Amino acid sequence: MSRYRPEDLRRFVARVLESAGALAEEAEVVADALVCADLRGVHSHGVVRAGIYLDRLRAGSIRPGAQLAVVRDSGAAVLCDAGSGFGVVAACRAMDLAVERARRYGVGAVGVRNSNHCGMLAYFVLRAIAQGAVGVALSNADAQVAPYGARARYLGTNPLSVGIPAGEEPAIVLDMATSEVAHGRVQAAAVRGERIPPTWALGPDGRPTTDPQQALRGALVPFGGAKGSGLALVVDVLAGLVTGGRSGPEVVPLYEELHRPQGVGHLMLALWPEAFCGLRTLRDRVDRLVRDIRALPPAEGFDRVWLPGEPEYRRQLEYAQAGIPLPEEAVAVLQQLAEKAGLAAPEAVP
Amino acid sequence: MSRYRPEDLRRFVARVLESAGALAEEAEVVADALVCADLRGVHSHGVVRAGIYLDRLRAGSIRPGAQLAVVRDSGAAVLCDAGSGFGVVAACRAMDLAVERARRYGVGAVGVRNSNHCGMLAYFVLRAIAQGAVGVALSNADAQVAPYGARARYLGTNPLSVGIPAGEEPAIVLDMATSEVAHGRVQAAAVRGERIPPTWALGPDGRPTTDPQQALRGALVPFGGAKGSGLALVVDVLAGLVTGGRSGPEVVPLYEELHRPQGVGHLMLALWPEAFCGLRTLRDRVDRLVRDIRALPPAEGFDRVWLPGEPEYRRQLEYAQAGIPLPEEAVAVLQQLAEKAGLAAPEAVP
Repeated sequence: MSRYRPEDLRRFVARVLESAGALAEEAEVVADALVCADLRGVHSHGVVRAGIYLDRLRAGSIRPGAQLAVVRDSGAAVLCDAGSGFGVVAACRAMDLAVERARRYGVGAVGVRNSNHCGMLAYFVLRAIAQGAVGVALSNADAQVAPYGARARYLGTNPLSVGIPAGEEPAIVLDMATSEVAHGRVQAAAVRGERIPPTWALGPDGRPTTDPQQALRGALVPFGGAKGSGLALVVDVLAGLVTGGRSGPEVVPLYEELHRPQGVGHLMLALWPEAFCGLRTLRDRVDRLVRDIRALPPAEGFDRVWLPGEPEYRRQLEYAQAGIPLPEEAVAVLQQLAEKAGLAAPEAVP
Repeated sequence: MSRYRPEDLRRFVARVLESAGALAEEAEVVADALVCADLRGVHSHGVVRAGIYLDRLRAGSIRPGAQLAVVRDSGAAVLCDAGSGFGVVAACRAMDLAVERARRYGVGAVGVRNSNHCGMLAYFVLRAIAQGAVGVALSNADAQVAPYGARARYLGTNPLSVGIPAGEEPAIVLDMATSEVAHGRVQAAAVRGERIPPTWALGPDGRPTTDPQQALRGALVPFGGAKGSGLALVVDVLAGLVTGGRSGPEVVPLYEELHRPQGVGHLMLALWPEAFCGLRTLRDRVDRLVRDIRALPPAEGFDRVWLPGEPEYRRQLEYAQAGIPLPEEAVAVLQQLAEKAGLAAPEAVP
């Protein structure tokens, strides 16, 4: 597999977005977030997404230069309107604002409406961690998931992410969709003509299916039954309704109606450790917790116990040195982007 | 099944607790919380728990009259010490304080350490809802759950609850343990000599077991695999570490070492809707969302789609009128409590 230097990918993606009118500063943030996902091995949210961002920029549904406008400022809580700018940029600014308010009041909560797809949520909680805060990020998404007990789509894959600073150990970074699997995995199985496990999706008849074609006409299911479904619903309410944004099927699908802004909503929360047990104590105790859990005897079928975000962190360290091994689909996307933007595609590490 | 009037149960439980030194005001709060659980059909967290609370009161590990002391006040965030008082009382006061701060700053976060078992979390988010706020409640618990990939216990069943006000529809109340099932369900199967599904627990050998005796010597598993395990961990960190309280195996088991306070931690969060989209808008939109989801076509094997907290709400309405149908174990507990406290047990509705 070809490996790419992170800085080459960043520069390339930024130029592609700038070619369609993105400001240099926002193009850099988006490029950094996408390449961060690839660095962590989360290729579904990496440079492959630059394609749809470019298309939406050109169609006018991602508005370059949009500011995160404050709608209401209550001190620790701020409601913002993203003005249909880049979701990544809005989410970064919202998390930074949440951290700023948390530093002042102990906790900060920033709601964002009229945003777009914001990519891998871990990126934003890592930003909070880098500033010494505990970060929580929620986002809604377009309807692909049937609530528990239903056969029709209503909820998004509505992810949630929580980041906890550690000391010498990697930070704890939980980042999960509330669906059993991402839509992309069903699509990939359909392309390859493979069956899917019956626990991933329902067909249009409301019955679990192993046929990815049926699943694509049906609905994904939430992870963990009624509990995961409840979490998906709560994420939609907090990110979509509470912010005064769109929710459920009102959110425009990322890959459809490209001229319409998606209207995605986010909620970013930060806790300032000094308002609680103190950052130093927290770091020490998280280190101990991480080491304790890592040292637990593995269950049958496991070699060792991993902490949330630990595999991604190890990949990030490795790929930053050795280059990012991009999957074929991503390399193909780079080629398409180069053609569309009239640029040279980045070269693989020799 | 015998039915009991909620007010009879409340009065009885309060007197039982007062007989062991609880102040009238705190005994009333605890009794109301336990009976609320029975009213909602959550009998595992109902009057059956009064027994262990009484034993812990007598052993001195629940301290009557303990105040929720403010350790650090940062405006929107407050860190408190429960002084080993009743968990229910500390959690109520913490949620009320979180709502008060949310009203002032848009969001409020109250951490509590040195608390005890606080029962059904829904009780606290219902309190937030009654005050017009969105409420989130987290609590850690003693170690019964093996983190994903491990064969040994480390995490508690660490529940989380989220409450969202509605208008004419019942509020959305998600309340879930992060374990696949409660410990009590494995115990119940052991008593009845029944098998359990292999998805509930691991035996001491780290393999899934259908033998409840093996499961009791082993560990419960998180719901939803790695995702549920990540949530259980995050709840422990937020409720236990961030508050400077105990975490993981440091938390004293509810039914062991009765002389030692448990050292449970909670985190209560409240969002003030007026700082976001406004309460009226939120109520209207939640009503619409609830009706939309309820109207979705059911999946195979389902009669209809339920919202989180809706079955419990319906039971609450019915049982408040017709009396609470207590399961046999609960009736037996009432008899034991009556004997221990030298009181007459409440009488069933004729």
